[in-house]
This record gives sequence, C-alpha cells and structure tokens, in this order.
Amino acid sequence: MTQVTKAKEGKITNSMELVAKKEGVNPEFIRKGIAEGTIVIPANNNHHNLKPRGFGKGLSTKVNANFGTSEDYPEIDKELKKLKVAVEAGADAVMDLSTGEKITETRRTIMAETEVPLGTVPIYQATVETLNTGKAIIDMTVEDLFRVIEEHAKDGVDFITVHCGLTLETIRHLRDEDRITDIVSRGGSFMTGWMLHNEQENPLYEYYDRLLEIAYKYDVTLSLGDGLRPGCLADATDRSQIHELLILGELVDRAREAEVQVMVEGPGHVPYDQIETNIKLQKELCKGAPFYVLGPLVTDIALGYDHIVSAIGGTMAASAGADFLCYVTPAEHIGLPSVEDVREGVMASKIAAHAADIAKGVSGAKKRDLEMAKARKTLDWQRQIELAIDPKKAKESREAHNQTLKDEETCTMCGSYCAMKVVDKAL
Amino acid sequence: MTQVTKAKEGKITNSMELVAKKEGVNPEFIRKGIAEGTIVIPANNNHHNLKPRGFGKGLSTKVNANFGTSEDYPEIDKELKKLKVAVEAGADAVMDLSTGEKITETRRTIMAETEVPLGTVPIYQATVETLNTGKAIIDMTVEDLFRVIEEHAKDGVDFITVHCGLTLETIRHLRDEDRITDIVSRGGSFMTGWMLHNEQENPLYEYYDRLLEIAYKYDVTLSLGDGLRPGCLADATDRSQIHELLILGELVDRAREAEVQVMVEGPGHVPYDQIETNIKLQKELCKGAPFYVLGPLVTDIALGYDHIVSAIGGTMAASAGADFLCYVTPAEHIGLPSVEDVREGVMASKIAAHAADIAKGVSGAKKRDLEMAKARKTLDWQRQIELAIDPKKAKESREAHNQTLKDEETCTMCGSYCAMKVVDKAL
Repeated sequence: MTQVTKAKEGKITNSMELVAKKEGVNPEFIRKGIAEGTIVIPANNNHHNLKPRGFGKGLSTKVNANFGTSEDYPEIDKELKKLKVAVEAGADAVMDLSTGEKITETRRTIMAETEVPLGTVPIYQATVETLNTGKAIIDMTVEDLFRVIEEHAKDGVDFITVHCGLTLETIRHLRDEDRITDIVSRGGSFMTGWMLHNEQENPLYEYYDRLLEIAYKYDVTLSLGDGLRPGCLADATDRSQIHELLILGELVDRAREAEVQVMVEGPGHVPYDQIETNIKLQKELCKGAPFYVLGPLVTDIALGYDHIVSAIGGTMAASAGADFLCYVTPAEHIGLPSVEDVREGVMASKIAAHAADIAKGVSGAKKRDLEMAKARKTLDWQRQIELAIDPKKAKESREAHNQTLKDEETCTMCGSYCAMKVVDKAL
Repeated sequence: MTQVTKAKEGKITNSMELVAKKEGVNPEFIRKGIAEGTIVIPANNNHHNLKPRGFGKGLSTKVNANFGTSEDYPEIDKELKKLKVAVEAGADAVMDLSTGEKITETRRTIMAETEVPLGTVPIYQATVETLNTGKAIIDMTVEDLFRVIEEHAKDGVDFITVHCGLTLETIRHLRDEDRITDIVSRGGSFMTGWMLHNEQENPLYEYYDRLLEIAYKYDVTLSLGDGLRPGCLADATDRSQIHELLILGELVDRAREAEVQVMVEGPGHVPYDQIETNIKLQKELCKGAPFYVLGPLVTDIALGYDHIVSAIGGTMAASAGADFLCYVTPAEHIGLPSVEDVREGVMASKIAAHAADIAKGVSGAKKRDLEMAKARKTLDWQRQIELAIDPKKAKESREAHNQTLKDEETCTMCGSYCAMKVVDKAL
C-alpha cells in the first residue's frame, strides 16, 4: 500500500503528519496534495531510519545532492563523507549514483546511514553488471533491468529515476532535428543504445505496468527521468525534449491511476528566458506533478562555476513552480566532485531554493532574513553568524577579513565610516 | 563639450566608433542612443589611456568592480593588484572607493593604470578630509564637497556617484515608514547626517546645476546614486526608495537638457519577485536612462556567498533591462574583499551578465556557448578550456579532478560510461 492509497481513503499517515509539522502546514493539506498527486513523500516502506520530507506544491523547495562511487573512485568511505557533508549543508534528499565496484554493498551502506530520502538510477547498476560480465550494454535483458529495480525497491530506496518516456518515436524526433549534444543523460544514452541496437521499444515504457507494480509494493516514488534533456543552450526546448515530456505526462496519469507516487525530472541546459515556459509547460502537461529540475544551467561556458550557473537557473525555475532542485557542483562538466565541491554545490542550491521560496510566498520563508536584517542593524555579529546559511563559513570569513580591525562592532569594509553608525546618530 | 552635444549634432566620435566595433553594432546606433540618453560612454576628456565602453540599451550588460584603500588597509599596491585582477577577470569598469590615507594620490595612481572607465564617489573624500581636520561630517561645507568633485573631474574620473535625489522630503518618507536597516549607502548616510543636522536641503540637489556644469566641462558621466536603496529584503520597494527614484527621474531630465551623460543607480536587497518591477519602474520613471544595479541581493542570510546571491538577482535584473551590474564579492557584509574575493565577485557577475545577454537577445551572445557545446560533444578538452569563462580555473580544475583517469577523452564523472561516447556509437 502507498501513501496515495491512504490519502485517497482520507487517512493521514505518520509521514504526512511529520511533513506537515516540518513545513508548518496543516496535515490535511499534505493528504490532499498526495491524493491529487501534487505532493509526494518519497518514503519506501523498507527505509526504516527515514525522516520523511515532502516535495511539491505549496511546500518549500527541496535540494538533492548526488554522489556515488565510480570506476576511478571506488571507495565507499569517501562517498559516505560526501553524504554527511551534503546533509549537514542542508540537502533534503540524496541520490546514490554509484557505478564503481560493489554497487549493492555501497547502496546498502549508504541506506543505513541516510535519514533523508534516498534515490537511485537502477539502470546504472543493470548496465555496469552487464558490462562486468564481458557483454555490451545492448546485451542487457529486460529481466536484468527489472531484477535490479526490484532489488533497489526491496533495499528501501525511496525514489528511482526511470527513463520511461524515451520512446522510439522520441528518438525519431531527436534524429530529425539535429541536436548539438544529442543525449547527455547517462541513463538516456544507455537506453537509446539498447533500443536502437535491439530494434525494440524502451522496456521501461513497454512494461511500465510491471514497474508500477514494484513501485506500489514498496511505495517507491517514481522520478520519471528526462533522457533527452538538453545538454547545451542550443538544444533546449526542442521537439525531442518536449515529445518526451508529452509521454511523461501520460505516464503520470497512469501512475496516479495505479496509486503510485510520481514526480517528473526536467532540464538541463536552458537559456534563462526559456525557463519559466519549461516549468509551466511541465506543470500543465503533467497535471501538477512535482517537478525535479537538473539545474537549469543558463550558460554552457562557465566551467568551474556551474554551481553559480545552476543557482541562477534554479531560482528562476523554483520561483516559477519547480519543487525540487538537483544540485550542481563546481566540478560539473569537469570530473567527479570532491567533498568540498559537494558542500559548495548544496549551498548554492539552498540559496536558490530559499530565494525562490521568498519569491513564491512559501509560508515563513522571509523570517530568517528579517532576523538577519535586525542583527545587521544592531551590528550584532554573533547573531549574524548564527543566522547565516553557513555559520561555519560566516565565522571563518569574518575572522579572516577583520584581523586588523580596531573596532569590534564594525567591519573592514567601511571601518568607522559605517553607514549604520552614522545614520543611528543622525536619525 | 560632451558626447551628448556631439551626438545631437549628428557627429560620430572616435569613442562611439570604438564602442560600436566592440559591441558589433552600427556606430549610428550608438550615436542615436547617446543623443536620446539610453546609452552612455563614460569617457572623461582627461582620461587619456581609456579604452571606452558603452553602457545602455541594446548593448551587452557590463560589470563593475569596486576596490580602494581604507583606514585599516591603506596600501595602494594591494588595491592596484585588485584592479589588475578585476580587469583580467573581465570587469568593464572599476570604482575607486578609497577612504584611506592619501586619497588623491591613490586615485591618480589608479587612473594612470586604468584603461577601463573609472568611477568614484567624491563625497567619501570630502567626508574623510573633513574628519581628518578634526571636524565632524556635519561640518563639511558645500564648498568642500564641490572642490572635491571638481578635483575628481579634472583628474579624469569617467563617472561619479552623486546622491542627488536624497532630499528632505525623501527623508520624511524614510522616518514615516519605519525601515529595518534605514540607510545602508555610505554616501546616503553621510548626506542624511549632514542634512538633518544642518537643517538644509541636499546640496547636490540644491546646486545640481553647478554639478551639471562641472560634468559638462570634462564630460563626466553622472551616476545618480540611490542613497535610500534597501539594505534588506523587508525594506525593498518602499515609499522612500521610490520617492528618491522619482527625484532621480527629474534629475535625468535636467541632465539631458544640459547635455550631460547620466545613468541611475538602483537596489540593493530586493526579493526575487520584485526585481523585474524595480527595473521596469526605473526605466519608465527615468525615461530609459542606463540602469546600474548594486546586486540585487535576493536573500539577506547568505553571508559568505553573496556573490552567488548577487548573480541570481543580477541575471534577473539584467534580463529585465538593467545595463550595468556592480559586482558583489563573497566578502560582502563581512569585510574588505581580498584579491581572491575580487576575482570571484567579477566572475559571478560576468556569468550573470552573460546569461542575461543571452536571455535579452544581445547580438552574438550565444556564440561562445555554441562553440563550447560543440567542443563538449567532441570531447575536445583543450578547446573547452580555451572557451571557458575562466580558462585558468577550468584548466586547474580539470587537472585536479582527473588525476586517476585512464582515458584522456572522458572525465571522472562518468569514466567509460560517458553518454557522449555511448550515444555516438548508437546513433
């Protein structure tokens, strides 16, 4: 049984209560949102140490952090450290994207340590295991894929990215329209390679009912992946991207009928002036399903600064209605993020989510800003540091920038010409 | 004689030619913009080593970097280093905000090294010099202030911030409405203290014609400062801010009549959803005068990350029509920025300006992004680094993140599961 079933029966679950309390809203608001599909609480029945979070309409914007082992960095410890840092920095959910050795062991270790919703992309494991047996991606069987999905569900994964909307018809649009970067989604690329070689429809689309059965059994939230998300500004909002979104809209309907929680993933690289349209289109086509965006990135050229690029796009997206931001680290397009990259990535996305929550009028969002403004006015540095989004960084930076300061109240920016002081005397 | 006089006479100056070439537009477009007041080229007749830049409608969004000595850090060398780094990082203009010892010597040294337009805030020097003679700010005479303004103009300063719109009536609104942070503009605070104590109108408003005469003589561009810009989200778009903007609109008219180049400064701390309104209101009230924004900052709580906060607000502002972004460094609200802070601040603002230029359709803005996308598709790392907004950082980061990589074509993010490679084989 899923939260949807209960919500439709009029029941308020413990998870709904906890989410309502965290968000400062009425539990009935959460129940109604889940019943209607505008809110999800990714909470697998087998994720026992979970502190549930809600994602969707009327709730604060959430942030996800990705990590996971890879062939070049197979160590689990390092990824656990990233998990810790991400959650400390305020990540509301994490995704384990491991493709290194021992994927199952890694996932189970991470699951045991994770109190926030945990997501995965099962096709990564299905692909890597196929390759590890000496075969090619295209040799993966439908059974291989569903076996991994069921394993993830059974292990307690709260949400899974499944690229169900990438059909042969979508690929036809892709080939027709001549993209610059074709496909940049890893899952999308595996699926496309498989489909074209085997001349078969996407099994996640063809056997979607089977996927829904697994999701229903464990209450796994489906995160419908956008395999054809644009990988550069020039490819944004093209026919293949929007065709996939049409299919995702259909699949949202079917998930709701099956009482399975569902959200939709979105772009990607998108020019700033196209972001609002993308969000509103998704909300219409997918009938208000929670929207999980990967960026959006508003320029392709800022190698090393993509956390900033993503914060710019993420604020626009979330203020236009996106509910969930996947972080982007300064290492994006360069390599696997370090622990410090993870921290910086989460912080940038948290800033975007917070700025957007103020813009879209999320209840209570402005409160901390008002407190900070008051602390600034009274030159109360201790309080400013406490209220800062990253108190540790604020404290260190304050100390580093004010070593020569004679007056503890002000700062080296203005010294004794502090506007606050001058005005206080004048008014 | 100013550029405006020449533009109105139908003459295309050498500066107009150079700006047109740099922007990829017709020189006549620049001439017309200057004649109508929608474009300025801050180029003091005495700034001999200047490479002129244009600011305004139809041109790329520009970025300013502030620096300058202070009582705690009086060394000129350090500030020269910041100037160098800012311009290398792409700053289109710089402002010398020195308040340390030897302000005149500092300005002249910086002027000799500066090929981009240089701005100052003369009231800083007038105030500091008054204080240095043992008197209080309120003892500054009107003559003291105008003597410093004339000195800056004569020295070749290209644009000066003058808080002319802060009148006794504006202060009445401020006192009526009960702000949280009152006045956060240093110039605004000096002026307010002086006006209230002396029970006199703002001399920059009262003797505005005298200011126009000086500006005309050297072709100094007036940057009409917003002394009452909001210092926190709660104070944004209030009556005192907008009252000052009304006065600035009147002063734009008078500057245009006097054939003096003029731009208008704007907020400040502004919630994301109020930025577009602020920009459109300024453009209407000030009849299309170029708009120079200080941020805007979309949250008050991100101490240590205000360059990101400002990039978020700056992109929105510039895409809505702002022409010129004042950078904000990670040290904002903490202390005087270091050289590294200056770099990070300029980069964040350059990203915002670039993303906005793409959004507002500035000619050629997308070109480099398209080249980057192509380099990404072919896994041409050398070319990606060349095209990056910060090639040095891109190169260092690529090296740091890929030490264990076996395959030089890909990166540690996906290793051999690179979507680009998989898809290339498939399609």
